[in-house]
Amino acid sequence: MRKSAADRFRHLFNRSLVASQHRHRPINPILFRSLSSMASHSSPFPVTAQNINPQVLKCQYAVRGEIVTLAQNLQKDLLANPSAHSFEEIIYCNIGNPQSLGQQPITFFREVLALCDYPALLDKSETQGLFSADSIERAWQIVDQIPGRATGAYSHSQGIQGLRDTIAAGIGERDGFPANPDDIFLTDGASPAVHMMMQLLTRSDNDGILCPIPQYPLYSASITLHGGHLVPYYLDEATGWGLEISELKKQLEDARSKGISVRALVVINPGNPTGQVLAEENQRDIVEFCKKEGLVLLADEVYQENIYAPEKKFHSFKKVSRSMGYGDDDIILVSFQSVSKGYHGECGKRGGYMEVTGFSPDVREQVYKVASVNLCANITGQILASLIMSPPKVGDESYESFMAEKGGILSSLAKRAKALEDALNNLEGVTCNKAEGAMYLFPRIRLPEKAIKAAEAEKSAPDAFYCKRLLNATGIVVVPGSGFGQVPGTWHFRCTILPQEDRIPAIVTRLTEFHEKFMDEFRD
Amino acid sequence: MRKSAADRFRHLFNRSLVASQHRHRPINPILFRSLSSMASHSSPFPVTAQNINPQVLKCQYAVRGEIVTLAQNLQKDLLANPSAHSFEEIIYCNIGNPQSLGQQPITFFREVLALCDYPALLDKSETQGLFSADSIERAWQIVDQIPGRATGAYSHSQGIQGLRDTIAAGIGERDGFPANPDDIFLTDGASPAVHMMMQLLTRSDNDGILCPIPQYPLYSASITLHGGHLVPYYLDEATGWGLEISELKKQLEDARSKGISVRALVVINPGNPTGQVLAEENQRDIVEFCKKEGLVLLADEVYQENIYAPEKKFHSFKKVSRSMGYGDDDIILVSFQSVSKGYHGECGKRGGYMEVTGFSPDVREQVYKVASVNLCANITGQILASLIMSPPKVGDESYESFMAEKGGILSSLAKRAKALEDALNNLEGVTCNKAEGAMYLFPRIRLPEKAIKAAEAEKSAPDAFYCKRLLNATGIVVVPGSGFGQVPGTWHFRCTILPQEDRIPAIVTRLTEFHEKFMDEFRD
Repeated sequence: MRKSAADRFRHLFNRSLVASQHRHRPINPILFRSLSSMASHSSPFPVTAQNINPQVLKCQYAVRGEIVTLAQNLQKDLLANPSAHSFEEIIYCNIGNPQSLGQQPITFFREVLALCDYPALLDKSETQGLFSADSIERAWQIVDQIPGRATGAYSHSQGIQGLRDTIAAGIGERDGFPANPDDIFLTDGASPAVHMMMQLLTRSDNDGILCPIPQYPLYSASITLHGGHLVPYYLDEATGWGLEISELKKQLEDARSKGISVRALVVINPGNPTGQVLAEENQRDIVEFCKKEGLVLLADEVYQENIYAPEKKFHSFKKVSRSMGYGDDDIILVSFQSVSKGYHGECGKRGGYMEVTGFSPDVREQVYKVASVNLCANITGQILASLIMSPPKVGDESYESFMAEKGGILSSLAKRAKALEDALNNLEGVTCNKAEGAMYLFPRIRLPEKAIKAAEAEKSAPDAFYCKRLLNATGIVVVPGSGFGQVPGTWHFRCTILPQEDRIPAIVTRLTEFHEKFMDEFRD
Repeated sequence: MRKSAADRFRHLFNRSLVASQHRHRPINPILFRSLSSMASHSSPFPVTAQNINPQVLKCQYAVRGEIVTLAQNLQKDLLANPSAHSFEEIIYCNIGNPQSLGQQPITFFREVLALCDYPALLDKSETQGLFSADSIERAWQIVDQIPGRATGAYSHSQGIQGLRDTIAAGIGERDGFPANPDDIFLTDGASPAVHMMMQLLTRSDNDGILCPIPQYPLYSASITLHGGHLVPYYLDEATGWGLEISELKKQLEDARSKGISVRALVVINPGNPTGQVLAEENQRDIVEFCKKEGLVLLADEVYQENIYAPEKKFHSFKKVSRSMGYGDDDIILVSFQSVSKGYHGECGKRGGYMEVTGFSPDVREQVYKVASVNLCANITGQILASLIMSPPKVGDESYESFMAEKGGILSSLAKRAKALEDALNNLEGVTCNKAEGAMYLFPRIRLPEKAIKAAEAEKSAPDAFYCKRLLNATGIVVVPGSGFGQVPGTWHFRCTILPQEDRIPAIVTRLTEFHEKFMDEFRD
């Protein structure tokens, strides 16, 4: 039933989120109408929404889109008048931004960053009393790795050599297979790395990138901005957002039959927004598929530390492919990692890296050139990326407190995920797969026809209608499923599991009350 | 004479650096040959230099290009065997990276950054003995400005509100005209801001951007990557790299007659690589020109603190346009600022901002959307950008030491610029305009015919030939003029003024000896 609905609506879906981007073709009528109204003040401005890059216009990024603007306006209301609404504050569950919701940074990481930012501290005796011994030692090591100890200089365009050595060693330890520091490109978070790959691989809208649906909207935004074509493959909600090779094959063949040259496959593991953790066997099949079909495997592995299901384990695609005996000559694999996620959640530091393997030397040179145009990633983020891949070890002064901080955050996240998942599954018409990993739940909401009609009357997608209602009633910000893509005719939203543990019961109460009232209003 | 040579060669030049970029046209034969040779191993790789984005392939970024790769190889040689070459070390004069050559960071800035990175320090009594009172106070202010004091959270996509307030106040103080915090977009250095504007304004290679020649190669690289058309205007070397309105008009008309839609004018003031500081009257003419012609004025003002000529003063284009009575409805102006330059030279922190004024609300919304796809700039860079626009003031504990550090750096840079300029002007066949500002000298070298022939035999541009010889003989890295653009038939190189003062005499000696030998070898 779900499948046939999917097939029926797929062509519609392909015309919206997965629209083909033609630089020189006439703009489609729907888009054109909205452009006309946008530029209706027929201004004296030489730059208007009608004459900017249409790829910019088309690009959408739901996690910071309309719903967030609405939330910011409500927040301003509350600032001016704390009793303006029936809630006291806005709870941002729209984005994986742990520290904005009260998560504390890992002490050891911040100690090292402070010492590297102001290395004069390293020479002062008072420093011993303020910082852990191993943070001082680590800061010395890092400062010594920087040519001329110049922590304020541009680094090598791939990042400081010594830090890349550390990261490569960390990958080696994680995987049991060595990593090459020359394959590491340090970046300002994972997003610029994703953009770099899309820029490299996209020649025109005949170039396609296979992306999961639902997907993290960075991918659709980046593909649109670079003028490429998003080729969707659907995760199977019924099997816990399973990634089926048959679906990959079907979508690849379908795209090829339309003349699309499919360049790469994006896999997000653990899944965003879907939270599933892939089984190693499934990953082997994916590697085999990419090898056979000549696809670059773009592995978004930024949630590798966020695993909550005891029976699940993260396996990097690098480890999986190497354990199959595949090396640089067999598969092109790019793995993205970030300091923003994991137990550290250092989003604001904008640190991350990509491990780039399997490109021919001349293509790799082009990757380096594009990195060099942006000079280098920020050094604080670079240092932090090395720290997350090489945290304190047994015997280090910080080890026990570090493990306590890390363990506390991860076990609490697991509890929060479970509590929210249970609450969601208790709501009428809502089903929610388990968050085995990552930071999100992506419940399916079966909306009554009456609600769908009311949404249509407001020119809103039904899930966006639901999310706006939720926000206005409770101050809770979640993102409509339509921003991530979903099987047409189904409706979802993404909710982070990040509010602090003591806040969860109140959130559950508010959400439950809202949902009951919503259903009472719209039940068919 | 110079002008006629310019005209004669201009069409050739337009076919190389300023090549038009056609997504769907056949690749030109010269490029195609080099691609074929690059991919000659006819590899099993599904991604080759022949099937990646041709805009990536075409993009060039000289300041980190071939010459730097060569230098890095020499440095590896020296590491393996210190007597491998006739020099002991590589002196990187290729890039404006002050701290890599020994410039020390400003103490106050680093104190504040360390405290913000590890705010737990703010609560400890020992901190008083280690940090200045005003750095502690400033760090408190900043941490309090961050929602939830979450220094590790993603911020608003334009940057933290309180920091934007501080920056706007700093701009207001600098200009005598107010700035709006909502017009500030904090970015990871100025480069991503430039990319964002090129991405916004470029629909196809029929969209042109007027750029100075010589230019900082970020502009040509970014225009190429975004598929646009660089429309050159030539600075007049004979009048100290003067920017003539007649030249702007001529090039604009020429481009329009070819069907190019010119969207924007880039002005770099103080000039990079040319070091001139524009006179206020000249700037007024430029503003008038942009207003009349409906061009966005992209003002690269990252060297605003680097002024060495006592008779010169920096005026922001914002101040100039506002003093002419022009507001948001009259001119679209984007000013770029960076923490990487000035007296601070904090390149590795990747901080900066753009002040965006005059766009219609719907276009401004698109700028915001593109910023939001990248989430936010790194917080450390954001904080630093606020500090450079609001340094210690009279009466603050750090004020005197801050002024001493700043003054010491700027006066030393002025001395170094003068010493290198004099040395260059003493070389046979070399003339060098004064560096009134910025961080570079861009001497013209009149190369003997014999040298030009030798370069041709090596398939090298004559200035690149000279620079490679210089590097191999002395370890000094400078960038060939051809990477920046120059009047065809003239040859230059860019050399930073950044080696520490005590190193300058040795550099002058090495350079002079090399040049004499070179001329002896090739003199006609």
